[in-house]
Amino acid sequence: MTYIYMTLRTGKTVHEKREMVEKESGVALSHIGSFSLDEKIASTRNCENMVGVTQVPLGIAGPLRIFSKTTKQENTYVLPLATTEGALVASVNRGCKVICESGGAQTLIHRVGSTRGPVFKVQSMEENIQLFDFLVHHEDEMKRIAGATSTHLTLLSFDTKSTGLYRFVRFMFDTKDAMGLNMVTIASEAIARYIEEHTSARCVSISGNFCCDKKASHLNFQNNRGFEVWAEVHIPSSIVQSVLHTSPERFVETWLAKCMVGSAMSGSLGYNAQFANVLSALFIATGQDPAHVAECAIGMTTAEIVGNNDLFVSIYLPDLMVGTVGGGTGLATQKEALTLLGVVGGNDGKNAERFAEIIGAAVLAGEISLLASLSEGTLAKAHQTLGRGHIHSI
Amino acid sequence: MTYIYMTLRTGKTVHEKREMVEKESGVALSHIGSFSLDEKIASTRNCENMVGVTQVPLGIAGPLRIFSKTTKQENTYVLPLATTEGALVASVNRGCKVICESGGAQTLIHRVGSTRGPVFKVQSMEENIQLFDFLVHHEDEMKRIAGATSTHLTLLSFDTKSTGLYRFVRFMFDTKDAMGLNMVTIASEAIARYIEEHTSARCVSISGNFCCDKKASHLNFQNNRGFEVWAEVHIPSSIVQSVLHTSPERFVETWLAKCMVGSAMSGSLGYNAQFANVLSALFIATGQDPAHVAECAIGMTTAEIVGNNDLFVSIYLPDLMVGTVGGGTGLATQKEALTLLGVVGGNDGKNAERFAEIIGAAVLAGEISLLASLSEGTLAKAHQTLGRGHIHSI
Amino acid sequence: MTYIYMTLRTGKTVHEKREMVEKESGVALSHIGSFSLDEKIASTRNCENMVGVTQVPLGIAGPLRIFSKTTKQENTYVLPLATTEGALVASVNRGCKVICESGGAQTLIHRVGSTRGPVFKVQSMEENIQLFDFLVHHEDEMKRIAGATSTHLTLLSFDTKSTGLYRFVRFMFDTKDAMGLNMVTIASEAIARYIEEHTSARCVSISGNFCCDKKASHLNFQNNRGFEVWAEVHIPSSIVQSVLHTSPERFVETWLAKCMVGSAMSGSLGYNAQFANVLSALFIATGQDPAHVAECAIGMTTAEIVGNNDLFVSIYLPDLMVGTVGGGTGLATQKEALTLLGVVGGNDGKNAERFAEIIGAAVLAGEISLLASLSEGTLAKAHQTLGRGHIHSI
Amino acid sequence: MTYIYMTLRTGKTVHEKREMVEKESGVALSHIGSFSLDEKIASTRNCENMVGVTQVPLGIAGPLRIFSKTTKQENTYVLPLATTEGALVASVNRGCKVICESGGAQTLIHRVGSTRGPVFKVQSMEENIQLFDFLVHHEDEMKRIAGATSTHLTLLSFDTKSTGLYRFVRFMFDTKDAMGLNMVTIASEAIARYIEEHTSARCVSISGNFCCDKKASHLNFQNNRGFEVWAEVHIPSSIVQSVLHTSPERFVETWLAKCMVGSAMSGSLGYNAQFANVLSALFIATGQDPAHVAECAIGMTTAEIVGNNDLFVSIYLPDLMVGTVGGGTGLATQKEALTLLGVVGGNDGKNAERFAEIIGAAVLAGEISLLASLSEGTLAKAHQTLGRGHIHSI
Repeated sequence: MTYIYMTLRTGKTVHEKREMVEKESGVALSHIGSFSLDEKIASTRNCENMVGVTQVPLGIAGPLRIFSKTTKQENTYVLPLATTEGALVASVNRGCKVICESGGAQTLIHRVGSTRGPVFKVQSMEENIQLFDFLVHHEDEMKRIAGATSTHLTLLSFDTKSTGLYRFVRFMFDTKDAMGLNMVTIASEAIARYIEEHTSARCVSISGNFCCDKKASHLNFQNNRGFEVWAEVHIPSSIVQSVLHTSPERFVETWLAKCMVGSAMSGSLGYNAQFANVLSALFIATGQDPAHVAECAIGMTTAEIVGNNDLFVSIYLPDLMVGTVGGGTGLATQKEALTLLGVVGGNDGKNAERFAEIIGAAVLAGEISLLASLSEGTLAKAHQTLGRGHIHSI
Repeated sequence: MTYIYMTLRTGKTVHEKREMVEKESGVALSHIGSFSLDEKIASTRNCENMVGVTQVPLGIAGPLRIFSKTTKQENTYVLPLATTEGALVASVNRGCKVICESGGAQTLIHRVGSTRGPVFKVQSMEENIQLFDFLVHHEDEMKRIAGATSTHLTLLSFDTKSTGLYRFVRFMFDTKDAMGLNMVTIASEAIARYIEEHTSARCVSISGNFCCDKKASHLNFQNNRGFEVWAEVHIPSSIVQSVLHTSPERFVETWLAKCMVGSAMSGSLGYNAQFANVLSALFIATGQDPAHVAECAIGMTTAEIVGNNDLFVSIYLPDLMVGTVGGGTGLATQKEALTLLGVVGGNDGKNAERFAEIIGAAVLAGEISLLASLSEGTLAKAHQTLGRGHIHSI
Repeated sequence: MTYIYMTLRTGKTVHEKREMVEKESGVALSHIGSFSLDEKIASTRNCENMVGVTQVPLGIAGPLRIFSKTTKQENTYVLPLATTEGALVASVNRGCKVICESGGAQTLIHRVGSTRGPVFKVQSMEENIQLFDFLVHHEDEMKRIAGATSTHLTLLSFDTKSTGLYRFVRFMFDTKDAMGLNMVTIASEAIARYIEEHTSARCVSISGNFCCDKKASHLNFQNNRGFEVWAEVHIPSSIVQSVLHTSPERFVETWLAKCMVGSAMSGSLGYNAQFANVLSALFIATGQDPAHVAECAIGMTTAEIVGNNDLFVSIYLPDLMVGTVGGGTGLATQKEALTLLGVVGGNDGKNAERFAEIIGAAVLAGEISLLASLSEGTLAKAHQTLGRGHIHSI
Repeated sequence: MTYIYMTLRTGKTVHEKREMVEKESGVALSHIGSFSLDEKIASTRNCENMVGVTQVPLGIAGPLRIFSKTTKQENTYVLPLATTEGALVASVNRGCKVICESGGAQTLIHRVGSTRGPVFKVQSMEENIQLFDFLVHHEDEMKRIAGATSTHLTLLSFDTKSTGLYRFVRFMFDTKDAMGLNMVTIASEAIARYIEEHTSARCVSISGNFCCDKKASHLNFQNNRGFEVWAEVHIPSSIVQSVLHTSPERFVETWLAKCMVGSAMSGSLGYNAQFANVLSALFIATGQDPAHVAECAIGMTTAEIVGNNDLFVSIYLPDLMVGTVGGGTGLATQKEALTLLGVVGGNDGKNAERFAEIIGAAVLAGEISLLASLSEGTLAKAHQTLGRGHIHSI
């Protein structure tokens, strides 16, 4: 078999590469070859050795009404969800209905910033102390160096932690509307070079898993990454009954047994029901990096009975890495999805912030619907009927 | 705004629904509307409220040579990777080259089975003991009940754990070539009903996060889920130098600092470099559930110097939930990707098993390439040049 | 300064060694020199370079009534607690009162066994598979070898897990009434030698932290170590009010906020209030190894309102490493404490089992009292008054 | 059986209480009744219902030479270790010898402060934001309130984290030479009352497990508690051979297999060999709260080959809660032990800081010795011979 990676060096088109693969493998890739996006951009910016596309079904859920505590604004959205898993769109849709009929979700975000966590090596404790002192006394210079690598990036602050001859440094950057991992890496490399030039330390790896990128981690749960997002809703008892077909008591009992006791018993970082489902569908639809689901799906749902037997439900995302520019956001279908949400492109950070709040509310919708289904024992039924084409009333 | 979820009840086509959304939102969804897959199947089985597709660029990496320790067979594959992140395909591709030039990767899988972990409530320790005894003494009956729900499913065994008035039960199923979460849920519900009928226990939730589905968890790391997968390669020193432009020493130093010390310092379940990147690209390309990246990205990479300064690299995936039938595997582009891998459709479990091994070797390729880049400080450079269309020689 | 470790080689008495230290340091150790235990035994079996003792105040709490679900017996105990922390004995004492007035605690234990987890190295996946196969096919032989090292020890079973060129094996032993870590180590070394002789594997460390000894770990939480222990009590609403001065609602709210949400938010393995306090006081009093508190303090408390506004409280200890023979159990004061509990010495495993249940109920008592104090905001007050000698009515 | 807790209300002496227990139980507690400490102080400040003491054998290890990077001073210490576990003192002793012969350990501490982490409840996100704003804008006032509760305490700063209707606040205090948990609780209650008076928030529990007290937690690993402590030593190759009877290569291999890969495989927070052993022996000897071993035993050991085949070993304690005043530090034998270390009583924080460094170096000694034993397969042998009174040359 010819080494396909050789093609990386050549100037072949997507079409030519696909034909090469078809010829060598004997497999027709006609659907993969059917697409409308701009292959020139995609094949140079997003995907080497591109031969076509994967078509992922896109469904719509909503409307979802949100009162942002961050911007003090109220808005209504429809959610684009790219998924191959039957019942997910229906589930989120039902959650949106509950939220709307309950008067909307409250959301709040806190920009923590994209992070890179290089690891440095030194020869002794003495040198490690010197490195620490250097970092503390040259924060301004590091900010200047970082800022010089991109006008879209600002070094906000840094954390550091050492063990033995290692020192981990965690740089937090404001990258405006971009998730920004690439520019963050470039900036971190510039800072690392500066550190290496002025201290005895050597940067062993620009990512020392102290970022902590695309891995579920307690560091990101506690000290956060990207955006922290909160969303909540007060659901009147009557709506719990009429739309969710359960009771606040049953709902809270299910939440406690599953999201608290169950997650503790399984040593999970996800004290929730289905954060990962909603995140991955939104991420794919909007050109986010779906590998970030590995870290972003951590977090917590809470539920309790409030007031006159009403149901309070909240979600907390400690680590949401998203953006509205860069990565896959400029691709044709992804751009349409972001446009539908009203957050396409750059807007001095405001689009990414609004997008983060929408995601929080969407995740909340998913939690409400699934926990209700579980509390009434209708999960398998929903999957069964939706999986066979007979969509039941939700 | 009209409630979109109302459309779930109607018989509207994908086209009509998209027009509805376009009209209400004022946003043209023409690219989303450009696709070749069978919308009838997709909109009924995979995605409610479907209005079109998301096009995700698909690149090819390989060839990847694998010696399966499971089947004692040697095969060569090309990998379909759906991604919007520049440099990923190139990275995996380089890893494949290293593996091939080193004589191929060794792989091994162990089928643990798809799991569901319901949570039951009782009234007292006495009842909890009775429930435990019931489970222990009725395993055969539970197997019969599970088997009656589907010919594709076998209950392998179960674990159980209790605290207070809760009892968590974790059922492990062989679901042949399917990832099988839906059939597993149906079977678990049948078993749960049986338990409820014969004991005083009440099933609070058919998923008590003791599955533990789509959440990074220590339970899945230690006791596993889906498939356990191992892959390894011995890379001659000369290839480390010529293809990876680093040395075994630097590679191992980077691995230790990042994947071991760094992951420990950040409290991460991912003792690896980029499992999530490779998994999400393969999952999307082949119709897997990308939400599973949340749990599947846990696991460990090891590296050490062996023999005459050669480099040994391995990966361990404790929790790989994949299949070659069901879910999104039947969609047009996804099916072509699976066909390209030679593992399309059902084959008495063998296709899923082979697929799991391929994924393991692909993940290994990604680790080799990224750790080498990090050890030589070329990460940002790779992203920078690939992100701007000037693909450098790898 | 003279090297004190030289004294290890000499035949000096405790008295002579103490005088040596006093002379070199100029510090009088007269209280340390005041003790009644048999110094000959202690200095040879329990403590090298012994110069005297540390006197730890010993208080009594109780009575504590227990219905064992394991033995179907009911018994009443008084608890010896060695502590220097004012308020602890009072706290446990109050919990005992609540339990007694509520009709007693229910307890249950499951003997998992003492574990050792050696780590082996091999040269390749092929060898690792061979090692696995060897283990699976020679369990009987390993049991025979283990049994030959001591008549007090039985190899129950083993678990194994591999990554790269490593294989971890976790042997579980029944060590009757002994905590048994020493005999377990000897048996594991015999097994390891046998494995090394018959396979290509090399035992790198007889403890590969897969035991996992004296470290908080998810492995021990999920797969357990020593004894699993459960204890629970149903507390009538009236007693919650009269003795605990709180309400079931407040108690449960405090438990949920602290032991569930709080522990999750801090990434803790201790979903409880004060397991560590009660365990360390009981361990020191009865000659257990207090270093085991590091692992044994993990576990979970649950609380809920049941029946007619009564309070249900339970504890779950997944990993309790204790014994009634060996270690410090034969020392004079420790032996008296065990005698007071009625579990001194060997009794075919029954004493250790009964002891484990007592510990479980004592831990339950501590949880009840502290959570009640917290729910009423009286924690600081209790510490303040008890710390100054004015013991308030509890 | 008479309710013993009734005695708490009475003015009975230790002797009278012991007689009561002896009479009711029929068990002679003569050794428990043999002690020299001041029972009046102990029974009112340290231990309610006191009936005597537990005698824990006290051994001496050392000398241990330390160069403090914190104070720039060099000192030599002998270590008091209270233990019932044969081989521990010998093990630490050997580590001390290696450190001394290698020229001494380097140590460093960072005072993080004792923490309390109350949990507050609010009614809505709006109120939670108001609570956050209140905290941020009233830090000075909270510092004043805290300071007014004790002249020995200063509020350093606070962290806060919210989910749903919960807000956790983590106050960090400088408590000089005291571990200070009691005064920290009193100060936190004063602050909590202030918060409750000026906001709509209600303090549900003054400890919301966000402290996180006496529980192994990632929060304390990453954000620390009490003191962070580092200790390291460069051991010449010749000493590794002559005293430790192993090689740097074997030592590092054992460390990597056990403390890194093994701990990761068992999901442990303890990336070390025996932190818990050394900590519990030192804690008991010096009147620390041994329940803190539950949290303090987390942390990491590193080992690597440096220079001309020399061995570098380090330890990192992220969470060391100790003091030289308060708690059990004033009891007779404990005070003698602290005097021996030269850190008895208050000294404007300097004694506690020096004590923390000594502990770090002692923990380092324990790691060196045990990892060496494991690397040469002599663990069981050491326990066997020491356990039977034949102390071998170390």
